[in-house]
Parts: sequence; C-alpha cells; structure tokens
Amino acid sequence: MNTIGVFTSGGDAPGMNACLRAVVRTALGADMRVVGIRRGYAGMLCGEFEAMNHASVSNIIQLGGTILKTARSKDFCERDQRACSARLVKEAGVEGLVAIGGDGTLRGAQCLWGEHGIPIIGVPGTIDNDIYGTDETIGYDTAVNTALDAIDKIRDTATSHERLFFVEVMGRDAGFIALSVGAAGGAEMILVPEHDTGVEEIHRTILAGIGQGKVSSIIVVAEGDEEGGALEIARRVRQFGGVECRATILGHTQRGGRPTARDRILASELGAAAVNALLAGKAGQMVGRVNGEIVLTPLTDTWGKKKPLDERLYELAMALAA
Amino acid sequence: MNTIGVFTSGGDAPGMNACLRAVVRTALGADMRVVGIRRGYAGMLCGEFEAMNHASVSNIIQLGGTILKTARSKDFCERDQRACSARLVKEAGVEGLVAIGGDGTLRGAQCLWGEHGIPIIGVPGTIDNDIYGTDETIGYDTAVNTALDAIDKIRDTATSHERLFFVEVMGRDAGFIALSVGAAGGAEMILVPEHDTGVEEIHRTILAGIGQGKVSSIIVVAEGDEEGGALEIARRVRQFGGVECRATILGHTQRGGRPTARDRILASELGAAAVNALLAGKAGQMVGRVNGEIVLTPLTDTWGKKKPLDERLYELAMALAA
Amino acid sequence: MNTIGVFTSGGDAPGMNACLRAVVRTALGADMRVVGIRRGYAGMLCGEFEAMNHASVSNIIQLGGTILKTARSKDFCERDQRACSARLVKEAGVEGLVAIGGDGTLRGAQCLWGEHGIPIIGVPGTIDNDIYGTDETIGYDTAVNTALDAIDKIRDTATSHERLFFVEVMGRDAGFIALSVGAAGGAEMILVPEHDTGVEEIHRTILAGIGQGKVSSIIVVAEGDEEGGALEIARRVRQFGGVECRATILGHTQRGGRPTARDRILASELGAAAVNALLAGKAGQMVGRVNGEIVLTPLTDTWGKKKPLDERLYELAMALAA
Amino acid sequence: MNTIGVFTSGGDAPGMNACLRAVVRTALGADMRVVGIRRGYAGMLCGEFEAMNHASVSNIIQLGGTILKTARSKDFCERDQRACSARLVKEAGVEGLVAIGGDGTLRGAQCLWGEHGIPIIGVPGTIDNDIYGTDETIGYDTAVNTALDAIDKIRDTATSHERLFFVEVMGRDAGFIALSVGAAGGAEMILVPEHDTGVEEIHRTILAGIGQGKVSSIIVVAEGDEEGGALEIARRVRQFGGVECRATILGHTQRGGRPTARDRILASELGAAAVNALLAGKAGQMVGRVNGEIVLTPLTDTWGKKKPLDERLYELAMALAA
Repeated sequence: MNTIGVFTSGGDAPGMNACLRAVVRTALGADMRVVGIRRGYAGMLCGEFEAMNHASVSNIIQLGGTILKTARSKDFCERDQRACSARLVKEAGVEGLVAIGGDGTLRGAQCLWGEHGIPIIGVPGTIDNDIYGTDETIGYDTAVNTALDAIDKIRDTATSHERLFFVEVMGRDAGFIALSVGAAGGAEMILVPEHDTGVEEIHRTILAGIGQGKVSSIIVVAEGDEEGGALEIARRVRQFGGVECRATILGHTQRGGRPTARDRILASELGAAAVNALLAGKAGQMVGRVNGEIVLTPLTDTWGKKKPLDERLYELAMALAA
Repeated sequence: MNTIGVFTSGGDAPGMNACLRAVVRTALGADMRVVGIRRGYAGMLCGEFEAMNHASVSNIIQLGGTILKTARSKDFCERDQRACSARLVKEAGVEGLVAIGGDGTLRGAQCLWGEHGIPIIGVPGTIDNDIYGTDETIGYDTAVNTALDAIDKIRDTATSHERLFFVEVMGRDAGFIALSVGAAGGAEMILVPEHDTGVEEIHRTILAGIGQGKVSSIIVVAEGDEEGGALEIARRVRQFGGVECRATILGHTQRGGRPTARDRILASELGAAAVNALLAGKAGQMVGRVNGEIVLTPLTDTWGKKKPLDERLYELAMALAA
Repeated sequence: MNTIGVFTSGGDAPGMNACLRAVVRTALGADMRVVGIRRGYAGMLCGEFEAMNHASVSNIIQLGGTILKTARSKDFCERDQRACSARLVKEAGVEGLVAIGGDGTLRGAQCLWGEHGIPIIGVPGTIDNDIYGTDETIGYDTAVNTALDAIDKIRDTATSHERLFFVEVMGRDAGFIALSVGAAGGAEMILVPEHDTGVEEIHRTILAGIGQGKVSSIIVVAEGDEEGGALEIARRVRQFGGVECRATILGHTQRGGRPTARDRILASELGAAAVNALLAGKAGQMVGRVNGEIVLTPLTDTWGKKKPLDERLYELAMALAA
Repeated sequence: MNTIGVFTSGGDAPGMNACLRAVVRTALGADMRVVGIRRGYAGMLCGEFEAMNHASVSNIIQLGGTILKTARSKDFCERDQRACSARLVKEAGVEGLVAIGGDGTLRGAQCLWGEHGIPIIGVPGTIDNDIYGTDETIGYDTAVNTALDAIDKIRDTATSHERLFFVEVMGRDAGFIALSVGAAGGAEMILVPEHDTGVEEIHRTILAGIGQGKVSSIIVVAEGDEEGGALEIARRVRQFGGVECRATILGHTQRGGRPTARDRILASELGAAAVNALLAGKAGQMVGRVNGEIVLTPLTDTWGKKKPLDERLYELAMALAA
C-alpha cells in the first residue's frame, strides 16, 4: 500500500484533528503518501482531494473541529453516487481509506468496502459515544466535561435561587453523555432513553425531595429521552403542580472546544492503529479501545450491536443523590 | 450608624459574593455590625436575618451565585407587605441597607427609602448591564466571557460544517451582552433591540456574504430583539430560502461561574463605596463606576434614564466583519 | 459495623470531595454513622472528629481541595503516636476507616491495621498516579488537563516567538503526568524518570529538529527526572550551545481546581466501593479500578509493586512528534 | 496613503491577532493595501513581507499569540541596521506603519519615525500594562484572568493544607498584574515594586494574621519587586522563623491563551484607530484608550512618563483582606 486517504464525516467532534495528525504522521512514517479528502463523503463525490505532509498537521492537536471540514451527505446514500466516489478515490491512487466519524460515517464506509472493495478502516469520532466496539469515542470526554462545566455554572443559579433546573444534554438516542454528566454533576435525576421514567414519577420524586428539605436540584435530560426534551418535560411537570422549574438546552457548545487530554490520546492511538490495520491488510473494520487495548470490530457490528449503558454507574449516581 | 443590613435580590450575578465580602468587611472596619438578609425582599418579609462577621465572607470572593441566596418577590410589590418588611428591618436594629441587584431590586430599594425612610444604597448587580449610572454592572464582564467561550466553541462546528449559526444571548431588553459578545466573537451580524434589523435584511446580508465566499458565520441575537429569539429568526430566514442555518440559546450558563477579575474588583469597589455612602449620610442612591470614578445616581434615574449602547463599537464590529 | 471514620491525608487532589460525598452517603445508606477526621493523621492524633450527615457533603462534588482538610504528619511516623491515635479512634466508636490519599497515606493505613487491628480500606487519591492497584488515581485526570491547558497557552508563545520551552510538570518519582501531558500536548520530547535521556541526547535531538526546520518546540519534563528539573536541563542544554531555550515550572496550580468528570466519577465509585469493602469484612486493602472493574489490592502492594508507564503511548508520542 | 505595513514585536500578548484583524480590515475598508511584516523588527531587517487580505485575518480573533510571529531584535538597536530596515520598508511601497507591542517596540517605532520619517503609529500590546497613554494595554485583562485562575486553584491547596503561598506573577517593573490579581484573588498581601515592603514587615504581617486565626493565605508577588522574587522572599521569611510557606512562579502561561472579550474589543478599537490616525496624517504617536475615549500620545511619552498604580485599589484590597 503506497497511498492512503483520510477524511472526517458527520458531526464534528473534539479530537478529530488529533486523530488526523496521527493518521498522517503514522502513514508518512511508513513511507506512504497521504491524501486528505475534504468535507467527508460530500467532498469525496466532488474529488476534493489534497496531499498532506508532516506540516499539514502541525499545531492542530489542540484544536476543536476538523481542518478537513465535515458534512452530512444525502447524495452519498445513493448507490451510483457512491460508485462515482469510489472511482474518484481509485483514480487518485488511493489504496486504503481511514474514515473518522460516527454511525453514518461507518455505514458509508461499509458501503465503500462492500460495494467497491476499497480497503477502509473506521475510527469512532462522535461526542455521543453510541458506537459499539470501543469503550469511548473520540470527543465524548470533551463533550462531557463541557456539559459538566455548564451544569456547575447552572448550579450556582439553582442554589442561589433555590430552584429546580432541567438541563438537556446531547447524545442522540443514547444516554452516555447524560449519565456521565449527571453522575459527575451530582444531579438529582438522570433521564436517559435506556430507562423509562414517566413524567408522573419525575414529579413524584421532585416532591419527595422537597419534602426532605431539598431546595435546589438539577435534573439532567438526554436529548433522546422518550418523555420529550427538557422544555417539554418541564412544561408537563409544571402542569402536575407544586413545582417551579426552569429548563435549558445546552446545545451546540458541547460539540466544540479544545479536546481534553484523554480525547487527544485516544484519538492519537486510534489514528495510528487505523493506519497499522490497513498496513496489516485489514478492511471493513473499526478500530476501538476496549479495556485499554486496541481492538478491531466489523463495521456492521458497530451499529448493529448495542453498547450498553453502565448500569452500575446509574445505580450509584441515584444512590448518592438520594 | 451602628448596624447595616445587606441583601442580594433578583437574578443572581457572578461577583455578588465579592460584593458581599466588601460590604461586610468595610462595615466591620468602620466598627459597625452587619446583618445579612437572606433571599432578598422575600426573606426580608419573613425576617430571615443573620449576623455576619469577618469569617462569614472568607473564601467567597471567587464563588458565583450568592451565599445570601436571592429571589424575586411578588409580595414585595404590595405596599402593606413592604411596610411589614420595613418594620422587621427596623426592629432588627438595622439603620441602613445595601441592596445588591438589578432593576427590580433598585425599584424596591426606592420604595423602602421613599415610603419608610430607611436609608438605602443600591449596588448594580446584574449580568444585563442595563442600569443607568454605571459603565458596567457586577456580573456583566463574566457573562460576556462565558457567552464568548460558547461562541468560540460553536465556531469550531460552524467552521467545520461551513454553517450559519444564530446564537441567542441574555440581556433582557438591552443589547449590551450581545454587542460585546458579537464584537469580541467576530460575529457577522449582531441583532440588538436598540437597532431594528428586519428578517428580510438579515436574509439579504447572509446571501451577500455567501456571494462573497463566506461559508460559515455566527449571528448573535439579543434575547430582547424585536424580531424574536434565535429560533424564530432562524425559522423565518429559512423560509426566505437559500440559507441553511441552526439556532442555539445559550441560556442560564451565562448567569453562573467564577467571576472574572474585573467583576470581582468592580464588586469590591462598589460594595465598599456603598457602605461609605451610608456612612456619609447618603440614601436613595446607587453607587456606580463611571470612567473609573465612583459616582452616586438617584435610584429613580437608574431605571428612568436609558443607558445607551456603544454605537461606535457597533459600527466598528460591523465594519470589521464585512 | 455501626460507625466508620473517613479522612483525607497527604497532598490534596481534585476529586477528594467527590470521594468524601460517596463515602458518607454510601455509609448513611447502609444505616451507619460517619465520623469525619480532620487534617488526616495529624487530626487523628488530636482527636479532631466531627459527625457527618447527608448535608455535610451537599454541593461539594465540584470543589477542588478537601473539606476535611489534609496534612502531612511527621509525628504519625512514630509508633507510640500511632497507638495514641488508634485509641482515640476506638474511643470515638469508629469500627472501620476509609483513608483517602497517596503513598504515605496508604503506608499509615497499613500501620493502623497491622499494629492496632482497625479495619481500614485505602482509596488512591493523588494527582501523581503512582499507586499500584488502580489504572488511575483520583486527581490524576484533572491535573493532566490543568497542565495541558498550560502547555497549550505556552505553545502560543513558543510558536509566536519560534522558541523552545522546557515545561516541568508534577509527578513525584513517576512520569505519568508528564507522559499524558506530553502525548496530548504534542510535545517534541518527554523526559520521564522511567527513561534515561541524557542532556547530550536531548541537545542532539533539538539540533536535529532545528535541522529539519522546526522553529518551536515544547519539551515536557517530569519533576522526578534524573537529569534534574526543567531549569537545570535548560541551563545545561544552553551550555552545549546553538540552542536558545526557556524553562517554566507549572507548580502547585496542578493540584487544585474543579475536578474533571472522570475524576468525580472515579472518586464516587471508589468511595462507595471502600464502604462496601468494609461492610464485606475486608481490611488492609486498597480499592482501585482496573479495566473498568473495582479491585482490591493489599495495601503493602500499593507501594511495594511498581505500576509501569504505558510504554506504547511513549513510543507513539515520540513517533508522532518526530 | 496607499499602502501600510503592520507588525507585532516584543513579547506576545493575547489580543494581538484581534488587533491585526482590525488593522488589516480597516485599511482594506479604506481601499489601502496591507503588508504584513513577520517577526517584528527582526523580520523587517530581512524584508520578510507578505501581502495581507481579508481572508488573512479570518478566524483569528480568538487566537492567542500572533500569526505574524514576533521577536526581540538586538540588531535593530543599531542605527545602520535601522536604516537598512527603513530602506526595505520604503522599497516595499509602504507609506505608513502600525507597530503593535510594548515598551521596546514603541522605542523602535520612534526611531523609525525620527530617523527616517516613516509615519508610524504605535499600539500598546503587552500583558504588563506598563505603558503610559492608555488605561489598559492589549493582553493585560487576559493575563490577569489567567493568573487569577491559577490563584483560585492554589487557594484550594492553601485552604486544604492550611498553608501560606507566595505566588509570583509577571509584570516586568510594574505591579499592575499583581495588584489586579491580588485584589481579585483576595490575597492577604500584594508585593509590588511601587511599594517598598521589607521582608521583616511581611513576616510581621503573616504572624499577626496567624495570631488572628488565619490558617491559609496567598501573597501575590510582582516579578519586579525589590525584595526579590517569590522564591527568595519565601526563603527569607522562613529564616525569620515561625512560618511555613511555599512559593510558586506562574511563568509563561500568563502570556498565552484565548483573549478575553475585553482584550479583543480593546484590540479591535485600537487597531482601527491606528489606521485612522495614519489616514489623518498622524505619526510618531501611540493610540490608547483613556476613560473610554481613543487618545493619541507622543511615542516618547509612552515610556518617558510613568503610569501610576491605582493606589485606591491597593488600599481597598489591603483593607478588605485585613
């Protein structure tokens, strides 16, 4: 293998740049050429390729976002568009690909590999952590700490005003961010899609807390929770009566910012591992880190199998808040 | 004057604790006793008083929120309730009051002074900066930097995705936070209540930017803007067509957190000045800092006169973004 | 077991308060009483005990330092002083102890258990991460991110001035902090006690980098490095000639600050596990987390066995910097 | 005037990039061409010039350091070297210069103007704030907040260990940073070059505090203090006896990082004002902001006159700490 391509796709996540640095430098260290593909699958469709060298990734390890840009591409969902992309990739001399992103990115990668035989290795880059085959995804630790920083600030107001706040965090259909933020933030309740907590029960728990003398609380809500978002839950809790509450949605700030040490190191390890996997003749798999070891997982498993929430942490958080 | 009372009221603002520290220690230094009134006017109505000493305000200069708690009190809007409060205050031996808060707090202070002759000095504590008689209010600098931090993070995503974001910041009916955050964040547009910018014009400006090759932008929206909040404006801009955009509301995180150096220093200066004003026989006035000097302004002016936005900064920000 | 005691000792570490919260609330949840011992072994010698309830640990999960204070006690190194402490502990009705701290704290714990049969469980709380029996110690993740934040700032100056900086981080005799910070910060070299890198080699590597066109660099130095601290190494490198460089010691800022999400969660898990270990009749052991699982390690192993540095990460960091 | 040049020189300061953005875009807005001179006077001597356009300064308002790099140049101190520089500047078609930096930068600017008649306007960019003619210099507010963040962290350890810390901050020969950080950080003493506080008096004050029950303290030391740096003062205080204390030097972290809102706005205003001053035919002057107004000061006054420390703030900080 003489030339590899690399791209970031889907939602951006802090640490993607650290991962690009690792991919590029590991490949250069193995005497390969590296082609950067801009704007993910969207750019692949238009042949937005650029050669990358050692300096291309200098001084980017600390930057949020992705220097290669990213996009969500609808066109790429069509088979003939993918065929076109595959042709452009091959014409550019690219013999292997590293795809950095979340669920949608990995599905696209599987298509390229399955339909066109382009050796491709996925790297889990998403703040949501909802990818099977790795304990943590790149960007997750940063997003959790960003949301936690916001929770700490909101707690100042909650305590000063003796108020209840519903705070909605990101996470798509999974409660990973909500659980970590709630456990670390000392939240009184954590509403995640993995657990069914009806509004009536929420209301009952709040009243019980008030009965015990609690004057302020934070309840963390995962964006994918079945009962609706923070605004909707707050509205319905108010309807039940006896509770004054506010709701706030943390939003896109959770996606940006300087990555944490942990995310930069994970990104570096996975980026290097992806290149090494290609060199070892692997394809159609994702690199992840499980219990401190690099593991490969078939791409189809990364979305086909469900990564469970840490139920012990959930129980612990609830026990310590009670 | 042998005993003064102090309280925080209305929305909490970073720096209120630094101000309490200054009030308490300045009063103690002048051999006065200090009574802390909890939960603002609401606590005053219930006689929630506590003696404060040097140690009461140790190690709080760096904390957000307010250790005396705060509240918004509807009951205090009624004359007989205020009479009751005034009686409790006098019975506690309090001969002068320092009221720390925003617009509503200062109006309440004027009532106590006008109706019951309790010497009272106001201190402007609100993140909104919408108080006449001081260049800056306590909490404003911190809120601006917190919002700016969020803008910087959102810019990572805006740049990586080549997207347009409407970001709504706090500020009640005034555009102070929006202007500072927009100017410091390099926003392409800043929508403030003081300027009438119709959605059609917003849409036209965005299209012009796209025409010039701009691929990502941040537009800061003050919560009090006439055209509606960020979500509404984004919705209407989308209707005009040709523009893909997102909206995010920064929300309550802007109210909490460790105060900046500037807010702590301003809070210390104004807290000390308030006590000194009482000692000098002043009452019914607010202490503020204008051009580096401590000034006193009649309480009625603090909401009766309008503090203008810095139009030169607005013009400059627009010129530099263009 | 009806009553347990808890204390923090040795150098403070972010997350100790989250751990105290978990210990206290887990014990209360098991219907035990909790006695807080102030100032570690020093306070134990003087019987500085206080009852702790649910509210004692409210709103502390986010605070750096330790509300029980901490100290390093020389007196406790003497056998008769420890006998005195043990007697006071027993007289207070304490039937089990949770000791939160580093190496010295765990050695003291072993003495109390070995000499006086007081059931005691250790919890690894130190920023240095130099404790065998746990992948990470409480405070380590926060310290690494604090140091990384400083490195990112210094890189601004290094890049702007095209200069070389030696930055010394904490870590006692181990290179854990230095390695993580160096890998995450994109440092050109990482000098750790576990690797012998002579000044001559350092100088040669720097010159080689300059030869390849590098104009700015960061070299991270662990405080325990054999070649001396950052100031000494910088001085000697300058003597070799041809290199202009600066040195900075990050110092005590690495020990404070709000703990990261990871440290708060680890602290919560280990605090609860320590209480559960006591309830299960365990003693003379430390709770740790290895590969995501809670494990118990004999106290004597925690300092008797050496936790190895992650050599693969070291190799990776060097390969990516080259 | 058709073409201006701009450069940053001396120590880097957060906000220099925001200033470059303002200079470039204001000049372009006035239909001028802009030449960026790299590495300050050092680059000027070598003719390191580059054309700058609108995009050259996109997305840099939030970055620390300076994209044009900076340096301290000894060669420029020689008259014939300056003559050479002036010739290169004129040959590049540059008809006016904007010089961003501190004391040394402004002295160099005066030479270019005085000896070679090149119209030049200075902009005060230094974290030290030791420039006459402006209330604040670019970078000062950020440096103060960075140092304050460190002080807050050290306070966690000081409080937990009940210890005394001497913390040394930057500031060259002036106490501006020390005073602001000390006042905002609630320091027990603030040692600045402007005030002569002997070690004996320091020792006496510490003992008095201990006598009043103070168990932890922070003493802020300006790097230029006559009694020596923090390490030396701590050593001598220890010699007097009865006091255990630590010392830490904050160092170069104070120079980097994302600029605060205030620094970005000041930098934008001064950058624009500098260009406007050149357009108005001014030269040999520095733009500054005094009481919210843009003012011009002869370059020779900027170092010839001494900006006084805010003595009222010093008195207040001491009164509130007592």
